[in-house]
Amino acid sequence: MMTGMFYGVGVGPGDSGLLTVKGAKIIGSADIIIAPRSEKTDDSTALNIAKEYINEKTEIVDMIFPMIYDQDALDEAWLENRKIIGEYLEQGKKVVFLTLGDPMFYSTYIYVFRLLKDANFPIETIPGIPAFCAIASHIGFPLVEGDNIISIIPATADAEKIAATMKVSNNLVIMKSSRYFDNVVKNLDENGFLSNAVMVSKCGLPEEKIVRDLKNSSASDVNYLSTILARRN
Amino acid sequence: MMTGMFYGVGVGPGDSGLLTVKGAKIIGSADIIIAPRSEKTDDSTALNIAKEYINEKTEIVDMIFPMIYDQDALDEAWLENRKIIGEYLEQGKKVVFLTLGDPMFYSTYIYVFRLLKDANFPIETIPGIPAFCAIASHIGFPLVEGDNIISIIPATADAEKIAATMKVSNNLVIMKSSRYFDNVVKNLDENGFLSNAVMVSKCGLPEEKIVRDLKNSSASDVNYLSTILARRN
Repeated sequence: MMTGMFYGVGVGPGDSGLLTVKGAKIIGSADIIIAPRSEKTDDSTALNIAKEYINEKTEIVDMIFPMIYDQDALDEAWLENRKIIGEYLEQGKKVVFLTLGDPMFYSTYIYVFRLLKDANFPIETIPGIPAFCAIASHIGFPLVEGDNIISIIPATADAEKIAATMKVSNNLVIMKSSRYFDNVVKNLDENGFLSNAVMVSKCGLPEEKIVRDLKNSSASDVNYLSTILARRN
Repeated sequence: MMTGMFYGVGVGPGDSGLLTVKGAKIIGSADIIIAPRSEKTDDSTALNIAKEYINEKTEIVDMIFPMIYDQDALDEAWLENRKIIGEYLEQGKKVVFLTLGDPMFYSTYIYVFRLLKDANFPIETIPGIPAFCAIASHIGFPLVEGDNIISIIPATADAEKIAATMKVSNNLVIMKSSRYFDNVVKNLDENGFLSNAVMVSKCGLPEEKIVRDLKNSSASDVNYLSTILARRN
């Protein structure tokens, strides 16, 4: 008999005040908190954001979810994690998995969710503030209004697709902009976005960097996790 | 001397538990809460969501912001609202403006923000959970993953732009889908989205409706505020 419950809680992009009231309550009443890492050496950013809401009686479990996930040939580490989570749930535990930003938006949680759903585990997912929303409010940059279309593009997407999407969107969010920075800036320029574009990294932290002159910036100025917000002129 | 502060707080899409911890605290310590309405007869949904966090000493002010906003020819009602807010701030008051979903994402708050920013009022904006994130978590529908591109489209956008955007996006959020429902479904079908599309209205409320067979639905089944989530097959 399985009486426990698995919760995926989005902790938002960094400021602990941006957790939802519901998410913070669930974290505070958890039996087990899973702090996911992709490597043994990683620090868990999600755990740092959530820590002020964690009850001292709650057990914190480090769990490594390798970045590779193939639904048909599930990695042993993933299956082992599922087994451990299943055991907690069979003991009736409330298990909370922390995830940065929003759980259903470019997140490893999506794979965890599928893994557990396929095994018929009871799951509730609590949304979180996506980074681009936090950045927009923080710097006062409206994301999209009226009948306009906004596209969210990882700079690692196919170059032709990026160019085609920029042609038809009024507003853009570009993520992971470091690696293909020059290509991104060229596309922004050609499609009339460059005069209303701003790049932000480490939003809200002391190391925060806001770059408004993208044309005269270079890839070396760009943090891996920088986000660009832009609207067509 | 102006010592007050104007806060725009996103209250999320409906569940009061989805306010951020920071937003709920700011609401709880407000001197003035502005519950915006577009018409005298409207009920303020944002106020209903936030009400459990409001201190009984806080003054609640109804303010009508007409839907029409033209930065060059500002409506008298908008200027009058700015004057009233300015007077509160001069008295050192903490003024909180409530806004549904996220303040910088398809929101009337964007116009309020510009109006006050142009007048150099001190402003802080607190992000909120956008409706599409809440829907995705609630129904367990991953929004976007990996290097994929997601576009958010109001069904009221230009029909050619909608078709072009669907061609290049991997994942879609379609808002206000009622009015152009047949056209939206046709486009979803032609671009390989229809087998992985779901339409949700009144998410999380007792009247919630989830439609998974869009092809055999008609515009009359569709609530004005329905949202469609879809991913390409």
